[in-house]
Amino acid sequence: MEVMQVLHMNGGMGETSYANNSLLQRKVILMTKPITEAAATALFSTADTAFHASLAIADLGCSSGPNALFAMSEIITVMINLCKATNHELLEFQVFLNDLPGNDFNTIFAGLLPRFQEKLSEQMKGKYGASATFSCFFNGVPGSFYGRLFARESMHLIHSSYSLHWLSQVPIGIEGNKANIYIARSSPPGVIRAYYEQFQRDFSMFLECRGQELVMGGRMVLTIPGRRSDDPSSKECCSIWELLAIALNEMVSKGLIEEEKLDSFNIPQYMPSPKEVRLEVQKQGSFSMDCLEVSEVNWSVFDSDFDPNVVSEDEGCNLVRCMRAVTEPLLVDHFGEEIIDEVFKRYGAQLAARMSEENPAFVNVVISLKKVA
Amino acid sequence: MEVMQVLHMNGGMGETSYANNSLLQRKVILMTKPITEAAATALFSTADTAFHASLAIADLGCSSGPNALFAMSEIITVMINLCKATNHELLEFQVFLNDLPGNDFNTIFAGLLPRFQEKLSEQMKGKYGASATFSCFFNGVPGSFYGRLFARESMHLIHSSYSLHWLSQVPIGIEGNKANIYIARSSPPGVIRAYYEQFQRDFSMFLECRGQELVMGGRMVLTIPGRRSDDPSSKECCSIWELLAIALNEMVSKGLIEEEKLDSFNIPQYMPSPKEVRLEVQKQGSFSMDCLEVSEVNWSVFDSDFDPNVVSEDEGCNLVRCMRAVTEPLLVDHFGEEIIDEVFKRYGAQLAARMSEENPAFVNVVISLKKVA
Repeated sequence: MEVMQVLHMNGGMGETSYANNSLLQRKVILMTKPITEAAATALFSTADTAFHASLAIADLGCSSGPNALFAMSEIITVMINLCKATNHELLEFQVFLNDLPGNDFNTIFAGLLPRFQEKLSEQMKGKYGASATFSCFFNGVPGSFYGRLFARESMHLIHSSYSLHWLSQVPIGIEGNKANIYIARSSPPGVIRAYYEQFQRDFSMFLECRGQELVMGGRMVLTIPGRRSDDPSSKECCSIWELLAIALNEMVSKGLIEEEKLDSFNIPQYMPSPKEVRLEVQKQGSFSMDCLEVSEVNWSVFDSDFDPNVVSEDEGCNLVRCMRAVTEPLLVDHFGEEIIDEVFKRYGAQLAARMSEENPAFVNVVISLKKVA
Repeated sequence: MEVMQVLHMNGGMGETSYANNSLLQRKVILMTKPITEAAATALFSTADTAFHASLAIADLGCSSGPNALFAMSEIITVMINLCKATNHELLEFQVFLNDLPGNDFNTIFAGLLPRFQEKLSEQMKGKYGASATFSCFFNGVPGSFYGRLFARESMHLIHSSYSLHWLSQVPIGIEGNKANIYIARSSPPGVIRAYYEQFQRDFSMFLECRGQELVMGGRMVLTIPGRRSDDPSSKECCSIWELLAIALNEMVSKGLIEEEKLDSFNIPQYMPSPKEVRLEVQKQGSFSMDCLEVSEVNWSVFDSDFDPNVVSEDEGCNLVRCMRAVTEPLLVDHFGEEIIDEVFKRYGAQLAARMSEENPAFVNVVISLKKVA
């Protein structure tokens, strides 16, 4: 829940996006690689898929950090290898990089793409000989993935990682959530319901749009930070925000933040269970589910060789840096600039303390879908 | 020659692009409107054109100023009207906005698109009723149009205005051009030949790439600043640069610029004649020519109601502001930052003086092409 796309909520969604392409993001993409590879391979060998000379792939919530092209690069490599292995004519790739309009596309286009294209081209020449020409066309696509982004039946493979837990808006009717900032043990049932219903609306709209955009037989691989438990207030998904809530409540009690301000602050995220994800896919009806997996990444992924016996405040700090990159725009927007350093000092201490007690993990729900209707 | 896309030449092309969407650009698009409309109408009614529910249109060299979406908006309006008039199901539009990777796509996406989409949507609802949904998907495409930008046979209508006079590089072998900065009366024949051959290479590569990208029957409308005369050193296209050369030579004689610096500076543009444009189209072979027109826009377009009897230095200034926006990156790159104000003070005086003597005009070569092979 600490990477990618933050919907800046003032005045509706879509104002900005905020990227933190951390170790976590890269690790998650690598963990999901076998599933993505299987989807790409299935797509390649499915006769009913109408791709000929050109393959259209998209990353939704690409952000603009060093990992913005990572997932696409993995998929292209798989496809190039498949072409080579089957003596298939080399495909042309159309790569669509999507994020909110406020995302820094300039950095992707001018900063990341040139080297990326060079590397791809070298890789190609290594496989197909120096005279091989490799065609890969890049597009930036500004917009919310809770609406249509692409033309009807124009896409072959869509990928999204650590983006779909962001809701299109803070759920309506959660005034009762008071001192909490996300679903928590003490949240009234109405709050939990409002969060879940917002997830249902958003995720089914997402599936509806992608269903229109993918060709029949097209594939979609989604990694969503979520939970194993059926209980939406389960610790595995709520801890990370409960600890931020603790930090904010401390500041309320010290008079640094107004209580009403905190009462009206809530994070526009939902971390679904595998069951909830499956249910929406079944209800929406455009996709069959090839695969559903749950995986975990320890909070300590931010520290390369984690040892729970030697957790220092510094190790909390790596995680807090990551959380800061993602949540700062939301917090600044609501509470103002002034309190931010103090918030993250306290949040860092909470994270470090928790990590010294146990070895908490983020839970990922990974699904691989095939467009069938 | 004073708008759009400047190829920043150090280290090859593609470093940056520079936009000045002036009155001129808007005026030229409006002048070309009947030709664009005819192309769109022909595309719409041609049975052999394989567009169904979705129409892919592109603007090459869109820049990022207030006119970045202007041409696309004109084409979309024509298409919406055609759908309405023929009771055709409303099309989905895919709009591809291309410029060099250094172009400010962020400004287009976050600054211009939201209002543009709102306006289009209102226009639609005015025509089709409040419940009509209008689908228009925007893509930013970073890259040089002297290479491939889109997948094979994926585009229906391509537009480019005031961009194709920019060459992919300064021609090789024009050391003999000394005190000139573009083709001039005093340029050696080898210089003129080198410029022309660079234009031929670039323009035929452009046609080759677009020929691959357009569907059969697809259209292309190009407006290229050029000349009427067969003589490439004709005043109608060379004056604007001769006056800048005069300003720079004045500064050499005052010791403000080193002579060698000026000798090695040349503008990477070519302003072709209708005959030269036609020849390349015929040689390349992918397109039939539906229309070739030559039009003029007075230099004084920058001043709304021009009267040659009351030209002041200020009127020169409007034009020089426009020329500055386009040429400053090239000049700074070659001569450094320090001399720039002085260059444009002198250039402005030259432009004003010329405009007080006569009423010079930019010449536009406009072609409308159909993909036939």
